[in-house]
Amino acid sequence: MPIQVVVLGSGSAVPTLQRNPSAHWLRIHDCDMLIDCGEGTQLQMTRLQLRSAKLRAIFISHLHGDHYLGLPGLISSMHLMGRKAPLQLFGPPPLIELLEQQFKASESIINFPIEFNPLFADEPRYIGAFEHFTVQSFPLNHRIACTGFRFDEKPGLRNIRKDAIKQYQLPVEQLHGIRQGNDFITPSGKRIPNKEITKASKHLASYAYCSDTSPDPAYIQTIQQVDCLYHEATFAENLVGRARDTFHSTAAEAALTALTARAGHLLIGHFSARYRDVAPLLAEAREIFPNTHAAIDGMALEIHSDKHLIIS
Amino acid sequence: MPIQVVVLGSGSAVPTLQRNPSAHWLRIHDCDMLIDCGEGTQLQMTRLQLRSAKLRAIFISHLHGDHYLGLPGLISSMHLMGRKAPLQLFGPPPLIELLEQQFKASESIINFPIEFNPLFADEPRYIGAFEHFTVQSFPLNHRIACTGFRFDEKPGLRNIRKDAIKQYQLPVEQLHGIRQGNDFITPSGKRIPNKEITKASKHLASYAYCSDTSPDPAYIQTIQQVDCLYHEATFAENLVGRARDTFHSTAAEAALTALTARAGHLLIGHFSARYRDVAPLLAEAREIFPNTHAAIDGMALEIHSDKHLIIS
Repeated sequence: MPIQVVVLGSGSAVPTLQRNPSAHWLRIHDCDMLIDCGEGTQLQMTRLQLRSAKLRAIFISHLHGDHYLGLPGLISSMHLMGRKAPLQLFGPPPLIELLEQQFKASESIINFPIEFNPLFADEPRYIGAFEHFTVQSFPLNHRIACTGFRFDEKPGLRNIRKDAIKQYQLPVEQLHGIRQGNDFITPSGKRIPNKEITKASKHLASYAYCSDTSPDPAYIQTIQQVDCLYHEATFAENLVGRARDTFHSTAAEAALTALTARAGHLLIGHFSARYRDVAPLLAEAREIFPNTHAAIDGMALEIHSDKHLIIS
Repeated sequence: MPIQVVVLGSGSAVPTLQRNPSAHWLRIHDCDMLIDCGEGTQLQMTRLQLRSAKLRAIFISHLHGDHYLGLPGLISSMHLMGRKAPLQLFGPPPLIELLEQQFKASESIINFPIEFNPLFADEPRYIGAFEHFTVQSFPLNHRIACTGFRFDEKPGLRNIRKDAIKQYQLPVEQLHGIRQGNDFITPSGKRIPNKEITKASKHLASYAYCSDTSPDPAYIQTIQQVDCLYHEATFAENLVGRARDTFHSTAAEAALTALTARAGHLLIGHFSARYRDVAPLLAEAREIFPNTHAAIDGMALEIHSDKHLIIS
């Protein structure tokens, strides 16, 4: 199944009328999630008819305001709208204290459980337990502790080879077990290994999100061969010095990262408010990595396996 | 001079596409201020071409998220846009800690001084020192500590009576002193009291802001005869029970408050998200207090003395 992404905010620290701060809506199978939640994210969700009640998990990459200041208001609104279902929250350890201090100041008791999972920006880690996909966090190179995320669909049931059904006369009642990975025992007692009679299901899509970072070889390994890489591109290459000072990337650097990691597609965003028109950043990236796309608030992506992408 | 108000948010806790959470821009003489700062306020300012660089003071009524969650982002943006001028901040004592915890988590050092003035919701108090106006805070009756605000233009220089100029042959070089309140000593040494030769300047406008409150006689005295009263009207009268439970007011109660306080005009706002159309709330209030107006995001008011109001 494709991974669906909706860009809720494609701007950086100072929001503009065209670009909200960072937030991506993400759907994998039936699981809706949010990555980062800058100020105004809940209103962007309303605008794009994405219902907060459906959210199962929120991932916060780091504690710069443009990546999480929309979170207290979103949680408060979910509470006021009667949410009871638990919410998984992933973020830097101080995040939960910041939220609790705000709830305390407003004497609010949130009527649903927030299951907090602290993120540590030391090394790549598998985080969370989801039925249809895995999530890894990995350290980025930013001014403060910051993690990227990689989402990979899990393999589904294996597909049974048509020739095997015929050759071994596989009984119907065993087919599900075989699709789950069981070997087949013939009536004469011979074991046929699962991989001789099945093949892996295809169509596994993957998505990685690098919010705020200087380019760094350290995280290339984790984002290898991802179908779609979102990577910040705050500046154009002529401001590379400014990018280093602020631990950000240029569009060319984002493209080089995608090229080195052999990503299928590159989505750039987190554009500085100085760029009314990001066409020069897009052009700069495409010279290095042709499959680059520039994020726009409201843009929807369907990420298929085999590096096939549909943008609407 | 008229007091100018621009409504940046007229909604309540859950923002909608029509109504942002609470925030009013306020200009008295050359001093620009903000009262409350819900999530998204900085973007509303951008939309309405109100420049944060001009803000001298921000007043936060209480620590429910829809009244202050836009503040950390606004302060961060002012910092990123190079502000150096001090900002006066008025709010409940925990506000400054909440901000400092966020700046600490993001390892941010704000490059301009924030002069914090804690507000105490125990009794009416004069707060702040402004050249052309006074500000009072006063307790409202809400679920948590919450203050209203009243702004009154200070009297300007007194006007010299034309007959006195002729009668006493007032020398030009003494006119400014007399306008400031000096008595006049005649050449023969006789003292003419200031009030015999001058009259008070007119045109003193006033504005009061009651953010979130159950109606309460306790604050009527402080808002007496204000030219324009902003008062929350979260619900219509048929939800008066819900208003009591949540320490809010109905439109009818806001109108009765304005009537009792002999206000010139009443602006109602903080409408519950359930009201797509607030015409019934406006009609309900106008039955009691005809000079009622319903706030809309982007609405601008010029509050003149003598209860004269221009809305655009």
